[in-house]
Amino acid sequence: MSHNSFGNLLKYTTWGESHGEAIGCVVDGFPAGIPINKKYIQTRLDLRKPGQSKFTTQRKEKDEVNILSGVFNGKSTGAPISMIIYNSDHRSKDYSEIKNKFRPGHADYTYFMKYKNYDYRGGGRSSARETAMRVAAGALAELLLKKISKNKINISSAVIQIGNERIENKTWNINFINKNPFFSPNKSILKKWEDLILTHRKNGSSLGAVIEVRVSNCPVGIGEPIYQKLDSELSKAIMSINAVKGIEFGTGFDLVNYDGTNGSDQINFNNNKINFHSNHAGGILGGISSGQDIIFRYIVKPTSSVLSEKNTITKNFKNTKIKTKGRHDPCVGIRAVPVGIAMTNFVIADFLLIHKSKSL
Amino acid sequence: MSHNSFGNLLKYTTWGESHGEAIGCVVDGFPAGIPINKKYIQTRLDLRKPGQSKFTTQRKEKDEVNILSGVFNGKSTGAPISMIIYNSDHRSKDYSEIKNKFRPGHADYTYFMKYKNYDYRGGGRSSARETAMRVAAGALAELLLKKISKNKINISSAVIQIGNERIENKTWNINFINKNPFFSPNKSILKKWEDLILTHRKNGSSLGAVIEVRVSNCPVGIGEPIYQKLDSELSKAIMSINAVKGIEFGTGFDLVNYDGTNGSDQINFNNNKINFHSNHAGGILGGISSGQDIIFRYIVKPTSSVLSEKNTITKNFKNTKIKTKGRHDPCVGIRAVPVGIAMTNFVIADFLLIHKSKSL
Amino acid sequence: MSHNSFGNLLKYTTWGESHGEAIGCVVDGFPAGIPINKKYIQTRLDLRKPGQSKFTTQRKEKDEVNILSGVFNGKSTGAPISMIIYNSDHRSKDYSEIKNKFRPGHADYTYFMKYKNYDYRGGGRSSARETAMRVAAGALAELLLKKISKNKINISSAVIQIGNERIENKTWNINFINKNPFFSPNKSILKKWEDLILTHRKNGSSLGAVIEVRVSNCPVGIGEPIYQKLDSELSKAIMSINAVKGIEFGTGFDLVNYDGTNGSDQINFNNNKINFHSNHAGGILGGISSGQDIIFRYIVKPTSSVLSEKNTITKNFKNTKIKTKGRHDPCVGIRAVPVGIAMTNFVIADFLLIHKSKSL
Amino acid sequence: MSHNSFGNLLKYTTWGESHGEAIGCVVDGFPAGIPINKKYIQTRLDLRKPGQSKFTTQRKEKDEVNILSGVFNGKSTGAPISMIIYNSDHRSKDYSEIKNKFRPGHADYTYFMKYKNYDYRGGGRSSARETAMRVAAGALAELLLKKISKNKINISSAVIQIGNERIENKTWNINFINKNPFFSPNKSILKKWEDLILTHRKNGSSLGAVIEVRVSNCPVGIGEPIYQKLDSELSKAIMSINAVKGIEFGTGFDLVNYDGTNGSDQINFNNNKINFHSNHAGGILGGISSGQDIIFRYIVKPTSSVLSEKNTITKNFKNTKIKTKGRHDPCVGIRAVPVGIAMTNFVIADFLLIHKSKSL
Repeated sequence: MSHNSFGNLLKYTTWGESHGEAIGCVVDGFPAGIPINKKYIQTRLDLRKPGQSKFTTQRKEKDEVNILSGVFNGKSTGAPISMIIYNSDHRSKDYSEIKNKFRPGHADYTYFMKYKNYDYRGGGRSSARETAMRVAAGALAELLLKKISKNKINISSAVIQIGNERIENKTWNINFINKNPFFSPNKSILKKWEDLILTHRKNGSSLGAVIEVRVSNCPVGIGEPIYQKLDSELSKAIMSINAVKGIEFGTGFDLVNYDGTNGSDQINFNNNKINFHSNHAGGILGGISSGQDIIFRYIVKPTSSVLSEKNTITKNFKNTKIKTKGRHDPCVGIRAVPVGIAMTNFVIADFLLIHKSKSL
Repeated sequence: MSHNSFGNLLKYTTWGESHGEAIGCVVDGFPAGIPINKKYIQTRLDLRKPGQSKFTTQRKEKDEVNILSGVFNGKSTGAPISMIIYNSDHRSKDYSEIKNKFRPGHADYTYFMKYKNYDYRGGGRSSARETAMRVAAGALAELLLKKISKNKINISSAVIQIGNERIENKTWNINFINKNPFFSPNKSILKKWEDLILTHRKNGSSLGAVIEVRVSNCPVGIGEPIYQKLDSELSKAIMSINAVKGIEFGTGFDLVNYDGTNGSDQINFNNNKINFHSNHAGGILGGISSGQDIIFRYIVKPTSSVLSEKNTITKNFKNTKIKTKGRHDPCVGIRAVPVGIAMTNFVIADFLLIHKSKSL
Repeated sequence: MSHNSFGNLLKYTTWGESHGEAIGCVVDGFPAGIPINKKYIQTRLDLRKPGQSKFTTQRKEKDEVNILSGVFNGKSTGAPISMIIYNSDHRSKDYSEIKNKFRPGHADYTYFMKYKNYDYRGGGRSSARETAMRVAAGALAELLLKKISKNKINISSAVIQIGNERIENKTWNINFINKNPFFSPNKSILKKWEDLILTHRKNGSSLGAVIEVRVSNCPVGIGEPIYQKLDSELSKAIMSINAVKGIEFGTGFDLVNYDGTNGSDQINFNNNKINFHSNHAGGILGGISSGQDIIFRYIVKPTSSVLSEKNTITKNFKNTKIKTKGRHDPCVGIRAVPVGIAMTNFVIADFLLIHKSKSL
Repeated sequence: MSHNSFGNLLKYTTWGESHGEAIGCVVDGFPAGIPINKKYIQTRLDLRKPGQSKFTTQRKEKDEVNILSGVFNGKSTGAPISMIIYNSDHRSKDYSEIKNKFRPGHADYTYFMKYKNYDYRGGGRSSARETAMRVAAGALAELLLKKISKNKINISSAVIQIGNERIENKTWNINFINKNPFFSPNKSILKKWEDLILTHRKNGSSLGAVIEVRVSNCPVGIGEPIYQKLDSELSKAIMSINAVKGIEFGTGFDLVNYDGTNGSDQINFNNNKINFHSNHAGGILGGISSGQDIIFRYIVKPTSSVLSEKNTITKNFKNTKIKTKGRHDPCVGIRAVPVGIAMTNFVIADFLLIHKSKSL
């Protein structure tokens, strides 16, 4: 049992608080002999990094990763890989005013009740700052996955809805995604989202988002029923990301509008390969990958730190009002995109190792 | 790592195939001294038992549970509790015709590709028959929970949508739920659901369902961030149930239509207790229970075994057609209700033990 | 965390009490496609079975194993394998007289204090009867190991000391071991041991034993430092066997009489293979197999159930005397031999799977 | 599964190589609200620190620990506690000469074969340098244990044999132990050990040692049968320490010289407490603490790095000779003492938390 670890054969553990000296992670079970390119890991971190556009928080963090162990002469050694990022811009004074008040929608109240203390400096351990280390660990998993799959498996993710604006154009342009500040899969909706976010930002409010993840070329057979199903582990992974309130695979909740006749994916064999007529299942049957694209979506709620005044209580259970002035994201879902990719990389890599161990 | 186990301090392992001799489970980590009433466990199993109404499968199973260990003189001893149910009506001849064909929407294909064999007799291990043992294990967890919480914690669940018919009347009548064949929370929609199911049954088709679970009086502080969050573990649990394709907490996916001003739950202190103005969060903040009702919903897809002919392939990758004649549920989601309750009981009981261990 | 489970990728869980209805185990993570020969498993159980000679307990148990799941058409399916043995000769009346007294040297007192109950019928869960299921699980691991290693890995074990009679003749005759009632590695000492045991048996006393295990042809590289070292896991495994009080590898405790010059194993390369000049290390360096024979020894204490009267207390903490009349082993160490083999098979098979998963 | 982690509810993970930039650990599952005194942790590290007397290695390491997370305002917060020690004196040039040769008795060969690489700089991950972090993690566990047990539980350890010189005087003076360079339990043998070590040091040789650990005032009921027995977990822990080749509890291997009449511990109740007439069992019955002192011993082999020339092979499997010139311990067992204490603290604290969770 490891509260702050994720994974099975491949496992990582994160540590560190939003406004502590540093954050870090240890990746264990990572095979030896994998080329580790620190610059590549940094490019993944840079995608999540705050302060990059006017659509995200203005907190400035270089998020420069340092590898302290487990890599020798450019390759993994089989020993645990320790990575660290020093917190550079942790202006904790921003938070002094709300030191004794629980921010509604944040974890202040539950952390305080559970641990009998809380780190008022930006949420401490409950802050999404922790997700930087998920990205670092996920980047390592990605390097492993590339090696195992000979670069075939590809995991991409995009925002498909911000507020009530859902993208209708289904084009999924992998090259475009990382080149626009919203991780939009195509440019059809950029203007609307820009307006929406700037308006909410000005009003001191924030927006939710729906994010889609796609895994292509995942081999058939990944996932370990009954309790380590691929969708089950992915759900656990994604639901552990801050502010995520739901996840669905394939046609998801909309499947309730289908019936047994049109809601499952027929199969045929053509051109020497298995084809499915549709992908209601999201690439997973019985908890095992089917070879189709694995597709899932998750909802990131609007961040609760807004400038309008709200009712709350103090640590002494007195009624009070709160306005949070910290630097926050008008649409935190955007920055969840690289985190979701990282988690997915980690889950898939872990399952591939397990699958490999059993293939006699 | 335990592919067929679930839980942490409290853990269960299931075994057995749909058409094997028996199915069973072992519950480990169960504290000593808890009164174990076998009849009570049986009543929980009876709620899930097939063949009880014309709205579920006609397979007849007595599902009579036998306790083989871990209980002495009516109380748990602290030793592992082994439970077994013999399969009585496993007419495997029903399946002989489809022995070499993969049923679309079922796990036949992926199991075959993963394990290089498959149990054509009703899906073998991938069958929802396994969930009977979840109900048995969950009933034990419920007995433990009742003891720990002095009967305060209550977990209830109901179907809130079948096909495109969502219940609008929000009344949640716990006493009514187990007394109607749909686990409906109130009687407002019974007639519509009845018609819908009987029509689909006649057409040899099937329907999906949305199920809601509510936990009341859960103490504040349950859940272990960052990677054993309460919602994360519940998602893992629920997503491991056959045919579930999505889960959401509180306002869930609909939160994308809220903003930072109206999408979080304000707090005040009145009448000597903490009150939240709303429950968008579904009773969980930062992965920890807040003391509000824990509320989540999940979608169970329409079962894929229908009488209409579908395209599929054989084990030798030849194109063919399939019509499944087995006895199946016109709305399998109905029978998922007691399973979801069982998993929720197990998750909460496990977390309460963990929480207890750290409370100095 | 699994109190009643052992293993990692390959895992088994045991359940059942000495005088309950049955005992059993579930083996999870077992790869698909391995031929499972129930008769072979039974031959392993027969080696441990009580009542086979005048040198072991007279309790009669057929120990007939039944496989309830996970095997289809003679091969493992990848699903959990459930095995059960019904207790046939559990004459609990033997124990009625000592119902309220703690047997010195047994776990009665500690079980009672920990669980606030105890199963006076032969020790309940703490009885060595549980080890029958280890033998069954170990036999499965052995079948897997044979398949993976193409029959090369061989695990043998023999008694090398009973009471103060240590065998001096170092001959290790694998074929002879299972053909004598003491699992002696050669016949040099049989007469002495026979006399010793019969004398102690007549006096109502018992004897301890030292057992040696040898693994030959284990590939180099098995074991996962730092905390899943091969010797560390083997120690955990062996020390969990009833009545074992110590374990040592290679030269073991006697290494304190060597120095840095003569206490390590020099290496050379001859005839196209690595040779070690000696085997002080017992085939393990840094927690990883070196390719040499893995050699370890463990001590099984004299069983504490003897006919002489001893001081003890009752469940109400009153001083009393006790004489145990149950049918017990004059040298329980003998019957530990197949158990130690089983655990070793399980540990090695588990590590081979892990190693395989990381070999890119 | 966590190759580089130890523990269950309370868990730590270590990382770092002997001659890397730093070593560190993350302690997870540590309860909130425990006062954390960094200076105390440092005093524990100082006991293990190299270069303190002429009887240990001359490598100079300040071993200054830094806490990076999980502690706020002097108390644990419930978040993972990350600790780091920078390697200051890692003169890797010492090792350049033996870069391509496997040191006999070290893990060079097995690491190379397993991971296809090895860190010739002092053994990399296989170096006992890793044990510094065990001491740091163990010190945290000790602080927790003191809090839970209200300072009652005490864990002490001493060297009882160096080379063939075993201490005969049984006095166990806790205050004396940490004040002599050998961790001897009394002064009776100091002169002999001093001579022995200095002689071996001069000859470029080294000595083995036997170490005893004693836990007093451990409550009855700690340990989780069948596979998380207290002695089983302690064995796993201790056997994972570098150079340990055996462990025994209570009378240990010598129990083979006892019989069922005199080899078990009779019980009586006097002066309102349970008394055992002897302690052959080492304070553990059936894997559960009995309330007696927990006593065990382990053997640390003579370190293999000696100045005499030995046969070995190169990475290319050519025969060669080796003389290791690094700065090594003439009796590395001495420095194992604080490590064994740390592991024992960790095991006991972990089990106390588990026990607490089940005590209804």
